[in-house]
Amino acid sequence: MPRYKIIVEYDGTPFAGWQWQDNVPSVQRALTEAVEAFSGEKTMVQGAGRTDAGVHALGQVAHFDLSKDYTIDTVRDAINAQIRPHPVAVISAERVPHSFNARSSAVRRHYLYRIVNRRPDLALERLRAWRVPRPLDVAAMDVAAQRLVGKHDFTTFRSTECQAKSPVKTLDKLDVTQMNGEIHITAVARSFLHNQVRSMVGTLVPVGEGKWTADDVTHALETCDRAQCGPVAPPEGLYLVRVDY
Amino acid sequence: MPRYKIIVEYDGTPFAGWQWQDNVPSVQRALTEAVEAFSGEKTMVQGAGRTDAGVHALGQVAHFDLSKDYTIDTVRDAINAQIRPHPVAVISAERVPHSFNARSSAVRRHYLYRIVNRRPDLALERLRAWRVPRPLDVAAMDVAAQRLVGKHDFTTFRSTECQAKSPVKTLDKLDVTQMNGEIHITAVARSFLHNQVRSMVGTLVPVGEGKWTADDVTHALETCDRAQCGPVAPPEGLYLVRVDY
Repeated sequence: MPRYKIIVEYDGTPFAGWQWQDNVPSVQRALTEAVEAFSGEKTMVQGAGRTDAGVHALGQVAHFDLSKDYTIDTVRDAINAQIRPHPVAVISAERVPHSFNARSSAVRRHYLYRIVNRRPDLALERLRAWRVPRPLDVAAMDVAAQRLVGKHDFTTFRSTECQAKSPVKTLDKLDVTQMNGEIHITAVARSFLHNQVRSMVGTLVPVGEGKWTADDVTHALETCDRAQCGPVAPPEGLYLVRVDY
Repeated sequence: MPRYKIIVEYDGTPFAGWQWQDNVPSVQRALTEAVEAFSGEKTMVQGAGRTDAGVHALGQVAHFDLSKDYTIDTVRDAINAQIRPHPVAVISAERVPHSFNARSSAVRRHYLYRIVNRRPDLALERLRAWRVPRPLDVAAMDVAAQRLVGKHDFTTFRSTECQAKSPVKTLDKLDVTQMNGEIHITAVARSFLHNQVRSMVGTLVPVGEGKWTADDVTHALETCDRAQCGPVAPPEGLYLVRVDY
């Protein structure tokens, strides 16, 4: 039974998130139904990361099994043909051994959070970035971000709905940079807690506004208290960019 | 009677174009009604370029007159407040003398055309770029583009509906470059004929596909025959980026 790995781009706006839930549109369901439609087989597409409602992906990774051998071009094109008009596109497909699991084999996940720092509403990037009207000090945000890098108990930056067994994670990278007139926050780790990136971004923005200091961020981290987290950043700025194996 | 100049960003998707037409949504109407709503005065917002239906703007320029003096921040914020939920944003406003006319004072217009060269449909950039599935030779397109730079009769690249008195225009720049995984075509001129950029792009893409040569482009230009133009590129890839005065 061949296993296929796909790299998927999607606009998270119309979905209740990656994960299949009854009676609401999900990316997992759209993909699974597209695979079933072209193959005529029952299957379940398994993703590397459960993105929330409104969160986008440039490079989500997923796998599924089918009994037949298809060329990888057929898999990519057939899913793309079936999934219309959902804003989901399979960028590439490949055959992988059964030892490959999109979720558990992942060794590193890369997220990007896009902030447009301006007063006017967004016209072209509406639902693609977070508009923050007050001027942000990017250098101060980057300094504070480094306080979160490393192995920590991230309870402060974890949704109360998070189902992970442990709140301890190792954050490999959290960079805040100016890029094409936007502020880009790049987060890299083997895995993240539920809402962790949006919680960290929502805590760095008050630093950029001058309301919080880097020491406040350290304090928020060390108290391991969800109430110390800044207001969670909205989903539309977040992108799952890449998953390494 | 103070004259105000505004720089405007918009998503062209829901509009029948810049220009006011009865019974269809237009950017000019949305802006004019927003100005009238905040000021309580009758006016007409005049734009630098009449973008077509589906064409976007990062930096359209427009002007209008009001009897009262407002601060430029008030003008920007009041229009933005009134124009919701249209995807139109005033980026900045300034006071200008009456000698300033957004259309006739413009000395240079900058357009960008975005092509995503890949087989899968677009998910995140849908209605923001043109997807061309066949691999394009960017260098060949750029060579051919240079055949169009300069002062020419652009009848071949002009919509049959174009109302300009003369088909002779001077194209200052037409560059084809690879940028962030996309192909960007930059066009700069004092003014353009109706559909000129999309007609030129639609003629360069067959060059990139290897179907046409640079000499074919020269021939199409020199025959001054609309029938020699390649298929006009779709509006969603085109952006009015900037207008110089």
